[in-house]
Amino acid sequence: MTRADRVEALVRERELDALLVTNLVNVRYLTGYTGTNGACVVGERLRLFFTDFRYVTQAQREVDAAFDREQGRQDLLEDAARHLSGRVGFEDHHLTVRAHERLRGFVGDGVELVAAGRLVEDVRAVKELEELERIRAAAALTDEVLGTLSGGTLAGRSEREVAVELEAEMRRLGSDPSFPTIVAGGPNGALPHARPGNEPIARDTLVVVDLGCVVDGYCSDCTRTFATGPLSGDAAAVYDLVLETQVAVLGQVRSGADCREVDAFARTRIEAAGHGEHFGHGLGHGVGLEVHEGPTLSRTADGALATGNVVTVEPGIYVPDEIGVRIEDLVEVGESGPEVLSGFPKDLVTVA
Amino acid sequence: MTRADRVEALVRERELDALLVTNLVNVRYLTGYTGTNGACVVGERLRLFFTDFRYVTQAQREVDAAFDREQGRQDLLEDAARHLSGRVGFEDHHLTVRAHERLRGFVGDGVELVAAGRLVEDVRAVKELEELERIRAAAALTDEVLGTLSGGTLAGRSEREVAVELEAEMRRLGSDPSFPTIVAGGPNGALPHARPGNEPIARDTLVVVDLGCVVDGYCSDCTRTFATGPLSGDAAAVYDLVLETQVAVLGQVRSGADCREVDAFARTRIEAAGHGEHFGHGLGHGVGLEVHEGPTLSRTADGALATGNVVTVEPGIYVPDEIGVRIEDLVEVGESGPEVLSGFPKDLVTVA
Repeated sequence: MTRADRVEALVRERELDALLVTNLVNVRYLTGYTGTNGACVVGERLRLFFTDFRYVTQAQREVDAAFDREQGRQDLLEDAARHLSGRVGFEDHHLTVRAHERLRGFVGDGVELVAAGRLVEDVRAVKELEELERIRAAAALTDEVLGTLSGGTLAGRSEREVAVELEAEMRRLGSDPSFPTIVAGGPNGALPHARPGNEPIARDTLVVVDLGCVVDGYCSDCTRTFATGPLSGDAAAVYDLVLETQVAVLGQVRSGADCREVDAFARTRIEAAGHGEHFGHGLGHGVGLEVHEGPTLSRTADGALATGNVVTVEPGIYVPDEIGVRIEDLVEVGESGPEVLSGFPKDLVTVA
Repeated sequence: MTRADRVEALVRERELDALLVTNLVNVRYLTGYTGTNGACVVGERLRLFFTDFRYVTQAQREVDAAFDREQGRQDLLEDAARHLSGRVGFEDHHLTVRAHERLRGFVGDGVELVAAGRLVEDVRAVKELEELERIRAAAALTDEVLGTLSGGTLAGRSEREVAVELEAEMRRLGSDPSFPTIVAGGPNGALPHARPGNEPIARDTLVVVDLGCVVDGYCSDCTRTFATGPLSGDAAAVYDLVLETQVAVLGQVRSGADCREVDAFARTRIEAAGHGEHFGHGLGHGVGLEVHEGPTLSRTADGALATGNVVTVEPGIYVPDEIGVRIEDLVEVGESGPEVLSGFPKDLVTVA
């Protein structure tokens, strides 16, 4: 079954005549199209792709032959609307209120628009072999980029300088960052989403480095926390707690495991050590065409892990203005258990 | 008047009690907050800012003191909803159908949710002096980066290699790209949104280079088309036509000019030369915190230019599989006429 066939099966299951796909990542997943304006429609014996003038040549090269290609105006909703009839699902997590109003105007009373949720995203969460290969390649490349830190220096250089160098290394290797690289030294590490600053990184402190690459459209995501010299007892203890937790929870990342329980497994340990309030984010998230996708491992997650999911496992402890530690692996939910795709060492590495 | 004061005035004018701002660029514009999860509410004597655990410290540093800061959960809608009453505007061009449904559930029957359109974007379209300075700095930096091409080579190198080098130069200068740099040689130049490829750039052809920088959050955007050697008569003629059109239309970029007519001024000339069907995109767009924002210069644009707008002026001709030329300046609509912020030469520059 092709990806579009799997979506068609879900479309029928929900008693829809077609699904209008406007989320560009989903359009890419289904058709192969990588431009920045496009939409597609999937239904029974229905495979339509829409783009505008600027991307017609690109669409001819890229879009799967199963899809009929239509050229529309820059706003594709009106063009797509002419091909819709019956009960039509739309991506309510993506379509804006304004776009929905306009679509409703274009389709007229004959069409019933139905919120379809994250239907394509649900299909995307289970990766095909070809996708897994790309994610593995992206993870290996991230290991290689992190490796360039080991022989260098951190203390005295700015976070920004280090981040720029890591991203330049990705590009030299033919890749691109999957998100802006985080390098956060000392108290900045206590900001889970810190941006690299221009101040020099201190000696004898922790430095959180969170980065990922893109290979053929697929992302990786990995965090390691380095030391720039001997640490205080508190900092070393927090590092050890995060590492022990991260290693212990990896074994829980199995097909059938409840997503909320996997998060709770890690959270309970960190709470027991008195740092519950310092672990304010979820344990992990899916990774694929997007660096944040399903499934989610968090206190509010739904559902269970399935073979073919790829998720991050990234407990962190953030003591405001003092200490930040996060250790993150990319993990494939394999048939016979978790397969950790991140290979860089997790024991504390000192880069002075 | 602060930015929030100007928004408050529009909120009153529309007989709203408050505006819920969920578009992060608008949140940044109003509050100063640069993180990736946040929302704010603006009404009469009402300035509220919301973020979650991960960004509390950052918000303390960044958010304007006029706003009361509230910590919510990762999904901020429920937290914001508790502070809303009466007629509340929401950003219907940004809020998804799903988020709107959830918001409606949280606020209950006592609150009337009203689609408010691009209210903050309209305020953003007219730049303050401080914003203009940043945009000018970003434009000057783009000139400097383009200048590094002049002494180098293009033919025989890959588009990707050139693009990576240009972006590395931006970073060396302390900036970042405002969008992925386009380097498109020969027939690839006929794809208005081409992505840099790995094939060597040919000799004696045209190369479209479209790039921009970010300085303190503000973007620039500039395109030049280079030659890698002597051109065919057709290619040279297309270059001349685009250049003449671009220079002629600059004089139209004045306060009070109808946006659609400015586009038509350029389009008519290109049509008269027989290339109407080869100019498939709009003449230009606003630039500021986003590289594409209001006002728009196109066949379907509304409204007129105002002093303080900053727009691109970028006619292009794309002959499929053959020739692509685009020349783009960043232009400020000044009190006494257009001020071109892009300084790189527009006469054909040959880089072999």
